[in-house]
Amino acid sequence: MGQEDRSSVTYGVFKESTQQESRVALTPDIAVRLKRSHVSCLIESDAGISAGFSDDDFRQAGVQVVSKEEIIATAQAFGFVERPSADLIAMLPAGSWVLGMLGSFTDEGYTAALQDAGLVGIAMERLPRQLSAAQSMDEMTSQNSVMGYKSVLVAAQEYGSFLPMMTTAAGTIRPAKVLVLGAGIAGLQAIGTAKRLGAVVTAYDVRPASREEVESLGAKFLDLDVDFSAGQGQGGYARQLTEEEQQAQQRAVDEKAAQFDIVITTAKVPGRKPPVLLSKAGVEGLHRGAVIVDCAASDLGGNVEGSAPGMTVTAGGVKVIGNADLASGVATTASMLLSRNLADTLAHFVSEGGALQMDLSRELDDALVISGRKEGRD
Amino acid sequence: MGQEDRSSVTYGVFKESTQQESRVALTPDIAVRLKRSHVSCLIESDAGISAGFSDDDFRQAGVQVVSKEEIIATAQAFGFVERPSADLIAMLPAGSWVLGMLGSFTDEGYTAALQDAGLVGIAMERLPRQLSAAQSMDEMTSQNSVMGYKSVLVAAQEYGSFLPMMTTAAGTIRPAKVLVLGAGIAGLQAIGTAKRLGAVVTAYDVRPASREEVESLGAKFLDLDVDFSAGQGQGGYARQLTEEEQQAQQRAVDEKAAQFDIVITTAKVPGRKPPVLLSKAGVEGLHRGAVIVDCAASDLGGNVEGSAPGMTVTAGGVKVIGNADLASGVATTASMLLSRNLADTLAHFVSEGGALQMDLSRELDDALVISGRKEGRD
Repeated sequence: MGQEDRSSVTYGVFKESTQQESRVALTPDIAVRLKRSHVSCLIESDAGISAGFSDDDFRQAGVQVVSKEEIIATAQAFGFVERPSADLIAMLPAGSWVLGMLGSFTDEGYTAALQDAGLVGIAMERLPRQLSAAQSMDEMTSQNSVMGYKSVLVAAQEYGSFLPMMTTAAGTIRPAKVLVLGAGIAGLQAIGTAKRLGAVVTAYDVRPASREEVESLGAKFLDLDVDFSAGQGQGGYARQLTEEEQQAQQRAVDEKAAQFDIVITTAKVPGRKPPVLLSKAGVEGLHRGAVIVDCAASDLGGNVEGSAPGMTVTAGGVKVIGNADLASGVATTASMLLSRNLADTLAHFVSEGGALQMDLSRELDDALVISGRKEGRD
Repeated sequence: MGQEDRSSVTYGVFKESTQQESRVALTPDIAVRLKRSHVSCLIESDAGISAGFSDDDFRQAGVQVVSKEEIIATAQAFGFVERPSADLIAMLPAGSWVLGMLGSFTDEGYTAALQDAGLVGIAMERLPRQLSAAQSMDEMTSQNSVMGYKSVLVAAQEYGSFLPMMTTAAGTIRPAKVLVLGAGIAGLQAIGTAKRLGAVVTAYDVRPASREEVESLGAKFLDLDVDFSAGQGQGGYARQLTEEEQQAQQRAVDEKAAQFDIVITTAKVPGRKPPVLLSKAGVEGLHRGAVIVDCAASDLGGNVEGSAPGMTVTAGGVKVIGNADLASGVATTASMLLSRNLADTLAHFVSEGGALQMDLSRELDDALVISGRKEGRD
C-alpha cells in the first residue's frame, strides 16, 4: 500500500453529505493532536461550518482545506460521522481505511461492500468499551452523552411550564416531574441535566445495577412492581427483553407514566429494534401538555409506540418528539468529542514508523476491523 | 350600570386572536380563586387549549364555556393577554371593564378609543409596582420572569456546545460563557437559569443597585470602565440613558461582548424605544457559533442592532434571535401567573356587595384606570 514509504499518515474528512447532519468528523484541536501521532489532515471546504468551525480555523490548525477529489487522491484514511454512501465507497482507493459508525451489526451487505472495494473498515460501533485503552475512542458513549443533554433541552423547550419550582408573588409553580426510561449513558446525562434545571426526576432501567447509578445522581428509581432479573447484557448494554417481559414492563410503565410531565426514552440496543417502553395507551394516559422525547426513534422503530421523526401532538394534547439525531443538534461539542474518538482510534493503528497497521492479535484491532483484515504483521 | 343588582361580577375571557399567542388570560385554578371574590367566569371554547387547558378543565373549575357572543352579552369585565382589537372594542358593551396590557404609554389613541366606547380601561402596565398590595397583580414582573427563563432555553437550544462543563474520556468541554445585559426581573431570571445549566455568567445593568443583585446570584458584574451614575429610574425600571451615555455604553459593551458565547439582552424600558446595547460591530465581534437572544426586539427596535423577529445568522456565523414573545413560549406557567395577576386586579375592584367599583382616591385605582374614570364613589 506504500504507507511504509511515508513518514506520516494522511487523514481525510469530507463535508457530511446529508442535510440534517451538522457534525464534522474532525475539529481543529484534534488535527493539532493528530500531528503528534504522525498524522496530517485534509478537510473538504466548509465541512465544519455547521459545527462552528470555519476553513480558516482548520488552516490555523495546520489542516489543508482542499477539494473532495484531492482528499480522495491523497489520504490513506477517511473519517466519517455518517458512514459513506455506496457512491463514495466506489471512489475511495483500494487499501485505504474507513473509520466511523458503519452499522455493521444490522447491515452485513455494507461490510461486504467495503470488503469488495478493498477497503479497511474500522467499525466504531464494535469498540470493546470495557477496555480502558478504548475509553477515549468510545464514540457511542460520547454521542449518547450529548444526546441525553439535548433531549432535556428539547423537552424543556416544548414543555409549557417551568422545570424548576418557582415561588413568585403571583403564586408558586411546582417543579416538573420528569421520567427517564433507560439509564445508560444518555439516560444518566438526561437525569443530570433535568436535575440541573430543577426538575424532580425519576428513572428506570432493566439493568439491576442502574438503580444505584440513578440514585447516586439524586433521582428516584421507578418501582414497577415487576421482576426483570438479569437485565444486564453483554458489554454493559441492556440486553433485549423477552416478549413476555417486554409486555409486562410496557403495561407497568404505561401506568406509572401517567403522573409525569415529561418522559424521555433512551433505551437503544445496538443494532436491534429498540424495545417499546411506552405503548399507545401509555402515551394517551399522559396529561395535556405533557412532552415525550423518544431518543431511540429510528427506521427500526422507537421506545414510544407511534413516535415519528419530528413532533406530533396527540388528540389529548401530548407532544411526542421522535429524534434520533439529537447529538447533531449540539454540533460543536458532539464534533469535538467524536473527532477525538476517531482520532484516538486512528492513532492506535499508526505504527511508530508512521504507517497504518493492524495487528489482529490485539483485542481492539480484532474487534474493530470488519473488512480488509490482514492476519499477522505487514 | 346595573352591577349593583347582582350578587356577583361576571368575568369573560376570549380565545386570544393572534396566531402566535399561546397564553390565556384565565386558568382553571384562578377561576376557582375568583369565585371566592364573588366573580363568576365565562370562557370562549378552546381559549386555553394551547396553554394546556381544555374546555373540560375549565368546566370542572366551574367556568361556563360559551361562545364569544355570549361572553360579550353577559360579562361585565373582560381579561386579555393581548389588548383587544378595534373591532372587538366596538362589540363590547359600554360600561364594561377591560383588563390587560393596554399599551397606554405609547398609544394615546388606544386609550381614547376605549374612552369613546365608554369602556373602563384597566392598564396593567401602569401598576404601581412598589406598593406591596400590588405585587400579586404585577403582570410585567411575572411575564418578564418567564421570558428570562425561556431566553436561556432558547439560547441553549441554538448553541452548538454544552452550557455546563463536562469532563469525559474524550476530553473536557469548557462551560459556556453567558453575558446577560439588563439585570431586571428578566435578566435576573436569565442569570439564575443559565447558572442552573452550569454556564459561567456575567451580567450588566446601568442601575448601580443591580451589581449587588447580580453578585448575590453568583454571577459576575461586567465592568465597563465607563461611569453611568444614577441609572435607576422611576418605579424600579432602568431610566433611559442620554444619547452620549448610550454611545459610550454601546462601545464598551461591544468590546467586552466578544469574549462571550451567549449574549441575552433584556433591557426593556416600558413604552419607549429599547436602548441599543449591542451594535452591529458588537455582533460582528462575536465568534462563529455564538448566540444572541434579544428579548427587547419589537416594532420599536431592540437591544441588538439589526435584530429581527425570528433567527438570523450573520455572515460570521453568529445566530441572532429576536423574540418579544418568549413568555408565550412557556404558555402554561405564563398563563397561570398572568391570570392570577389579572384576577387579583379585578378582585381589587369588586366591592363587598359584589359590584365593580373604582375609588380614584386609592393610589392603585388612580394609576390603573385609564378610561371611563369616575370620581367619587358610585
